[in-house]
Amino acid sequence: MERPRHQGMAKNTCMRWRLPLVCLLWEVAMIVLFGVFVRFNPESDAHWEEEKQKMNLTSDIENDFYFRYPSFQDVHVMIFVGFGFLMVFLKRYGFGAVGFNFLLAAFGIQWALLMQGWFHSFEKGKILIGIENLINADFCVGSVCIAFGAILGKTSPIQLLVLTLFQVTLFAVNEYILLNLLHVKDAGGSMTIHTFGAYFGLMVTRILYRPNLEQSKDKQGSVYHSDLFAMIGTLYLWMYWPSFNSAISEHGDAQHRAAINTYCSLAACVLTTVAFSSMLQKKGKLDMVHIQNATLAGGVAVGTSAEMMLTPYGSLIVGFICGIVSTVGYVYLTPFLESRLHIQDTCGIHNLHAMPGLIGGIVGAITAAAATEDVYGTEGLIKAFDFTGQYATRTPSVQGGFQAAGIFVSLLMALAGGALVGAILKLPIWGDPADENCFEDDVYWEVPEDEESDVYRMHDPAKPASP
Amino acid sequence: MERPRHQGMAKNTCMRWRLPLVCLLWEVAMIVLFGVFVRFNPESDAHWEEEKQKMNLTSDIENDFYFRYPSFQDVHVMIFVGFGFLMVFLKRYGFGAVGFNFLLAAFGIQWALLMQGWFHSFEKGKILIGIENLINADFCVGSVCIAFGAILGKTSPIQLLVLTLFQVTLFAVNEYILLNLLHVKDAGGSMTIHTFGAYFGLMVTRILYRPNLEQSKDKQGSVYHSDLFAMIGTLYLWMYWPSFNSAISEHGDAQHRAAINTYCSLAACVLTTVAFSSMLQKKGKLDMVHIQNATLAGGVAVGTSAEMMLTPYGSLIVGFICGIVSTVGYVYLTPFLESRLHIQDTCGIHNLHAMPGLIGGIVGAITAAAATEDVYGTEGLIKAFDFTGQYATRTPSVQGGFQAAGIFVSLLMALAGGALVGAILKLPIWGDPADENCFEDDVYWEVPEDEESDVYRMHDPAKPASP
Amino acid sequence: MERPRHQGMAKNTCMRWRLPLVCLLWEVAMIVLFGVFVRFNPESDAHWEEEKQKMNLTSDIENDFYFRYPSFQDVHVMIFVGFGFLMVFLKRYGFGAVGFNFLLAAFGIQWALLMQGWFHSFEKGKILIGIENLINADFCVGSVCIAFGAILGKTSPIQLLVLTLFQVTLFAVNEYILLNLLHVKDAGGSMTIHTFGAYFGLMVTRILYRPNLEQSKDKQGSVYHSDLFAMIGTLYLWMYWPSFNSAISEHGDAQHRAAINTYCSLAACVLTTVAFSSMLQKKGKLDMVHIQNATLAGGVAVGTSAEMMLTPYGSLIVGFICGIVSTVGYVYLTPFLESRLHIQDTCGIHNLHAMPGLIGGIVGAITAAAATEDVYGTEGLIKAFDFTGQYATRTPSVQGGFQAAGIFVSLLMALAGGALVGAILKLPIWGDPADENCFEDDVYWEVPEDEESDVYRMHDPAKPASP
Repeated sequence: MERPRHQGMAKNTCMRWRLPLVCLLWEVAMIVLFGVFVRFNPESDAHWEEEKQKMNLTSDIENDFYFRYPSFQDVHVMIFVGFGFLMVFLKRYGFGAVGFNFLLAAFGIQWALLMQGWFHSFEKGKILIGIENLINADFCVGSVCIAFGAILGKTSPIQLLVLTLFQVTLFAVNEYILLNLLHVKDAGGSMTIHTFGAYFGLMVTRILYRPNLEQSKDKQGSVYHSDLFAMIGTLYLWMYWPSFNSAISEHGDAQHRAAINTYCSLAACVLTTVAFSSMLQKKGKLDMVHIQNATLAGGVAVGTSAEMMLTPYGSLIVGFICGIVSTVGYVYLTPFLESRLHIQDTCGIHNLHAMPGLIGGIVGAITAAAATEDVYGTEGLIKAFDFTGQYATRTPSVQGGFQAAGIFVSLLMALAGGALVGAILKLPIWGDPADENCFEDDVYWEVPEDEESDVYRMHDPAKPASP
Repeated sequence: MERPRHQGMAKNTCMRWRLPLVCLLWEVAMIVLFGVFVRFNPESDAHWEEEKQKMNLTSDIENDFYFRYPSFQDVHVMIFVGFGFLMVFLKRYGFGAVGFNFLLAAFGIQWALLMQGWFHSFEKGKILIGIENLINADFCVGSVCIAFGAILGKTSPIQLLVLTLFQVTLFAVNEYILLNLLHVKDAGGSMTIHTFGAYFGLMVTRILYRPNLEQSKDKQGSVYHSDLFAMIGTLYLWMYWPSFNSAISEHGDAQHRAAINTYCSLAACVLTTVAFSSMLQKKGKLDMVHIQNATLAGGVAVGTSAEMMLTPYGSLIVGFICGIVSTVGYVYLTPFLESRLHIQDTCGIHNLHAMPGLIGGIVGAITAAAATEDVYGTEGLIKAFDFTGQYATRTPSVQGGFQAAGIFVSLLMALAGGALVGAILKLPIWGDPADENCFEDDVYWEVPEDEESDVYRMHDPAKPASP
Repeated sequence: MERPRHQGMAKNTCMRWRLPLVCLLWEVAMIVLFGVFVRFNPESDAHWEEEKQKMNLTSDIENDFYFRYPSFQDVHVMIFVGFGFLMVFLKRYGFGAVGFNFLLAAFGIQWALLMQGWFHSFEKGKILIGIENLINADFCVGSVCIAFGAILGKTSPIQLLVLTLFQVTLFAVNEYILLNLLHVKDAGGSMTIHTFGAYFGLMVTRILYRPNLEQSKDKQGSVYHSDLFAMIGTLYLWMYWPSFNSAISEHGDAQHRAAINTYCSLAACVLTTVAFSSMLQKKGKLDMVHIQNATLAGGVAVGTSAEMMLTPYGSLIVGFICGIVSTVGYVYLTPFLESRLHIQDTCGIHNLHAMPGLIGGIVGAITAAAATEDVYGTEGLIKAFDFTGQYATRTPSVQGGFQAAGIFVSLLMALAGGALVGAILKLPIWGDPADENCFEDDVYWEVPEDEESDVYRMHDPAKPASP
């Protein structure tokens, strides 16, 4: 193991002035921009009483808040507890996983409110926000959490904030192209969130390739309890995914249907994940990595189509396939990507988000192309794909073509954007950890003392007594 | 401890081909059956716009989705995080507890959608599903999670899948007899879920009696952190139980009332659990087993009556009693059941589900029998007990009689079904663990290596051996 | 360290008869009082069908249950999991933190239903309860959980029950003065919950000052995993705070707006907390104590104003400031309070609840005073501040004055009440722990045996080194 270290121990990882500066300046920028641009929309503004009369609504229950708030809270839990704890599986990086996820998401949702607001909720010089904007901001940040999974343990908090700034920006652009220019449906974000987030993250980690990462190999595993913590993340993602895929669908049947389809797909996915986890291991034992991750692939893969008439058995088929693809990916593809393509993917987002995201885009394109008036009803078809205004003459098969185009656009944006941002993050000014300190909380966190001395001592017995 | 081992170390617990085969074949069967039978119901189908006009609804908010989805998500959390983590208390069986619970529930909800669908949502050859079906599927699986508690740590994942297949089937039959033939009310499932699930599980564990289980006695306890994980399960069950008992009640006052009654019962239950936990221990110290389990008995015991006019103080009384019964059960009854009746009940489901379930059935019968037009209003009484159609002439006291009959039917179905399924699970082909490997994740799971050696040894090395 | 111990080892901490007696007697009292006073309100009573006609409602969805139940469940999670797990950070007091919080909250909500009911829902000799009462009871108990944070680890469960009894009583009185006599708005409870709860708790801990507490100093810290458990509490509080601040706001825009403002404030708060946590530490490392606590200050500080037209950027500013104030408080103020003022504040509630609560009261007063018809609309202004009936002529600036008065009333009530209750708790009959046994579960809980010696070493000593 005596390759020359291209990164010395002397690496300056001290965050004392850099991190506070970035946090404070950016937050001040947020305040200024919010002050200039962000206002309440008619449903959250105190003029609502007048608005109700204008819209001829008889009850406060018609406020969008009551259609979407429960789903919003579920999505919120997925972003902060779901993603945060899913990444706690590393034995020595629990604070970083849940803490940095917290930090980047808290910044990201503010910036996303602005970016998405300019594209989608801009009226008379103001961004008017309501509950749907909060959900969309959480969604946007979800794609950053996904990318974070690829570089988990190998970056400084400043790098993560820089990543968030750029990725949210590009996410909003990509989303605008898909939803507004291509008029694509993607309520659960198979393309905009998962495909985009995952390939973006994979490209970033490719650029940040660390040839000597085996120096911290011993810290890349889990311990018994960290695996249980991670299951909290897994289960909340799994349970609330029906809310994720239905949160911004049309009121009524679309939200209802999206939840059912997602529920079915996820259930099937668990069975095939377990089957292949056992089958691909010599002794037939189950691997926690698969249970924690591949069981979720079914939710990713119906992200585009869940609100369509995918049907429950269609959902089962998608879940069935994705559990297999994802588990096989963990066993065979992740090692291949690392050794051959130099893609070091800490959480295996390629298996959980990238491939299922692509499948999700394809399933969405096929489901859209296959739509008929018979299945949807005349009104239903128009409502489901918003075939109104300039799109009134679009047919399902044309819609399918645009859906497919959306996959490619997302992929291209992700790879180009990831390359750009990876290059920026490679600058030697962000305080990233040395190879031997990766996957180690001690670099950026005060770790409880008795923990330092001996709790975990044997995790890495070779490690010299640290400062 | 030198009794002859009737089970050798050589037991074949390898799951490599058996488990994948079962998972894949059964999932394919689900897909085929869903393909033939399952479709969206009018509220989740794309024809909803037309349906709305037919039903004369003016707003999408009238879609059942908005009445029940928040409760559904709470129930979902109870099944997967609640039951899953409640059982993580065992020091070496956390993966199995939360992971197998995940597996069996994911399969069970699919099979339950079919079984319950054939009985309750079958129209013109199709099962039409909506949000209420998802809740009912979760409920059905809840009874399997309960039974799992009795045999926790002593079975292979294949056995659990076989158990799920049969128990869901019998659950649906029993539920049909109660709800449709006897016209019994049981919205929170004191009888159909708890009584049935618990006695089913107790009978199964009786049949699977392991006389030499003391060989793994050292693993049957908890450690400090596993007890904290278990409290996550406890609290989510406790907090969301009002949603559980109200999830499928009639819209309006019934859902509202069911939540309030359950809230009250659970609150009282905590106080008496603490009282008796302290009282029954020589030094007056509290026992985590009681706090984790007996505090929930109050939710079980108002399962039938919560939607009725039980009243808040009636709920307090039920909770008061059940906290006592359940705690006393843990202290005196569980050891008795094991030593005398050879019922090895890992989680003590007899105390948490069986006895409180019976009490719940009785309370329900009494509350129904005591119903008057004065208390419910004329319309209210008819609505509360659905005294319409062929039941238009049924009186509250007759209803009380049928409720009581429902208890006995559930009990009989559970004992007979449990005996049958126990016998099937006893076949030596399912790969169950040897006595000395019970309560041990290592048999069916890849366990992180360094855990094996000494991870936690030293939390506070300086601390003198405390009293 | 040889100061004379004023508390001997011989302290009688046995709870065997005292705790059961208190629990059982008080619960019986609850049952009697509920039996005499508590009934369902029209929306949860079986006469609802008639009520609907009277109120001219066309749909069950108009039942308050559907406006508030999702928020109620979120608040419920905050009280039991949020506060419970936030306090699990202590290395040896996890059972006490989550278990005693469970106990006191379960008792407190019953007593709060009565106390608040007498003041606010009393009609014709009966307290009529519905979902809003449950939320308010949870809120009231929240203030007790806050006070518990100050004395965490230093009291017996009986003391906590006594504290709850008195604090809930005084809370209800203070709330009545503010909401009914001063006609103050405080939907998220910056004054009634946080300011009151925190100063109450600080006064109690001041009275209970333990000069020799350094004897248990070694147990006052965290370990790695206990910090991760605490993050579960933090995140649930953080994520669900928008529900907390909007749960009892007026239907429609007010609930909607309160959620948005809180979301914004909390997001900003995370950034400044991270900035100052890093800045105030020599090596620039982040401190888990700050991340766990100060990130929440933004939610506290918009408790009064969230439902007003605070605007998103106003919320960001409040969150920005509070993250700083709270973090600085942890670093400089907590040690000062302990050494100079003899206020031993285990969880630092002064930084998380007291100061942000005061700020919240002030922000509320200013926001109210600054309200104009232009911003709120004519109807909106009346609705927002309930300028009806005897308050029809109150102007925003007068309202601002009353809001400010509310802060002082809360503060006075808290300090006076805390002094009184502290004195009661000082009586030597409650079985509080000796100084050297503080922050130690072993005093009141059965702790798993192997934990005592050396936690995990022996999971299965017999087991041969596995592959």
